[in-house]
Amino acid sequence: MKSDTNPVIASLRSHRSVRRFTKEPITDEQLETIITTAQQSSTSSNLQSYSVVVVRDQAKKEKLSELCGRQRQIVDCSVFMAHCADLNRAKMVCEAAGYEFKATYFEYFLTAVIDATIFAQTALAAAEGLGLGGCMIGGARNHPYEIAELLELPPLVFVTFGMTVGHPDPDHQYGVRPRLPSDGVVHYERYDSEHLKPAVSTYDETMRATGIYDKRRIDLGARVPGWTDRTPPGQYGWIEHSARRLIDPAAQRVPLRPFLNAQGFELK
Amino acid sequence: MKSDTNPVIASLRSHRSVRRFTKEPITDEQLETIITTAQQSSTSSNLQSYSVVVVRDQAKKEKLSELCGRQRQIVDCSVFMAHCADLNRAKMVCEAAGYEFKATYFEYFLTAVIDATIFAQTALAAAEGLGLGGCMIGGARNHPYEIAELLELPPLVFVTFGMTVGHPDPDHQYGVRPRLPSDGVVHYERYDSEHLKPAVSTYDETMRATGIYDKRRIDLGARVPGWTDRTPPGQYGWIEHSARRLIDPAAQRVPLRPFLNAQGFELK
Repeated sequence: MKSDTNPVIASLRSHRSVRRFTKEPITDEQLETIITTAQQSSTSSNLQSYSVVVVRDQAKKEKLSELCGRQRQIVDCSVFMAHCADLNRAKMVCEAAGYEFKATYFEYFLTAVIDATIFAQTALAAAEGLGLGGCMIGGARNHPYEIAELLELPPLVFVTFGMTVGHPDPDHQYGVRPRLPSDGVVHYERYDSEHLKPAVSTYDETMRATGIYDKRRIDLGARVPGWTDRTPPGQYGWIEHSARRLIDPAAQRVPLRPFLNAQGFELK
Repeated sequence: MKSDTNPVIASLRSHRSVRRFTKEPITDEQLETIITTAQQSSTSSNLQSYSVVVVRDQAKKEKLSELCGRQRQIVDCSVFMAHCADLNRAKMVCEAAGYEFKATYFEYFLTAVIDATIFAQTALAAAEGLGLGGCMIGGARNHPYEIAELLELPPLVFVTFGMTVGHPDPDHQYGVRPRLPSDGVVHYERYDSEHLKPAVSTYDETMRATGIYDKRRIDLGARVPGWTDRTPPGQYGWIEHSARRLIDPAAQRVPLRPFLNAQGFELK
């Protein structure tokens, strides 16, 4: 089938992060379709080292919103999904078979994070296929201790990220966000840094033309001592915005390794 | 649209890992569709902290196959994609804007792993939408130092996993693998270990009935001193197989943290 008329390709290509929702709830049938569809996607050695905590309770969504950087979309969405890397079930399985399991290696943690992410991405693609929308919530790592307590996570379970799902508000315009030219992310046969620079420059211009970042200019003045904004108007594009996002102490969140260690992941 | 006639849901639900391919190459147009479609999926703060090394060179695929646990599918596939968590471009962007970037926090690493995984999963879904098939290759973490050298990765780039893509061999039967009952992966409002046990038992029986694991019985005798197989015939299902897979020293791979530290990820 040609890609320009292929419904799967068309649906995947039209992804945009939806953060404004109508009050219409998603049905139990839709939720089940999303979950059982996502369950069919790849999982390392069929261990299925992930789980999802589905939150629909309004008070709990309000609390989650506070913990994830006060995001209104979490209050407004029909369903919040906390996507978890999960080795608790792996431990249970080992005990049922009479073996001792220790989550010693980084490898175990990574496998669980990848499984959770594959599940989450397929869940979002399925929701979009049903005409719904949503957004990944990295802010679910802002307060890992509090989130773990709120969702009553046992050891060896970690909220990798959250996700909102609901009916997109038809009164709000969502554009499909341009991405880096393929040259900026693809390498052939070997990694070659040389061709990245022109791709990054081109993309910077593309994003400056959209004006998206002018509206979201990050002012580091309050957070980085001695910092002054020397970027002239019209020069604030993807490069400057991304760089500030990366060096912003507020975006670096809490050190996760002590939390993960406390949660039982040894990360050797 | 009802889920049972929805082409997006149908395509996602029919996923199976394809490891046998015909000799027909995937075209440049197909590869471009796969990549540009996957690029549209979610990425944290639009940083796009991933990259992909596309390998089609036969000699390089043979070498990769050796390094990923001697998997024939890597030699036979049309395209091998090495999906990388990538903070090298982030560093480049910071330098271009005149800031110093240090990949100090675990958070950065995790964001890049998640971005790479979302890209990879969408790439596979797009390939499947085009009638192609493939398989995620966790074995790309078996020999991280050698893989990094072979693909000439700079610091701050890490092959999270690989992926084969090609035309599925029509002479080979692929079944869609049953997954855990939803109760085994979904929790409502809070994590509740109680309902996991019946779901795991049910699934163990389902998988025993398929006979898949009887054919793949893991014998730990050579690797775990003093180990003897006490599992009677007919009792070797998902629980026993998964438990052995988890405690098998051969499946734990090399400690990844020293490698990641050497590759520039500080993981605080």
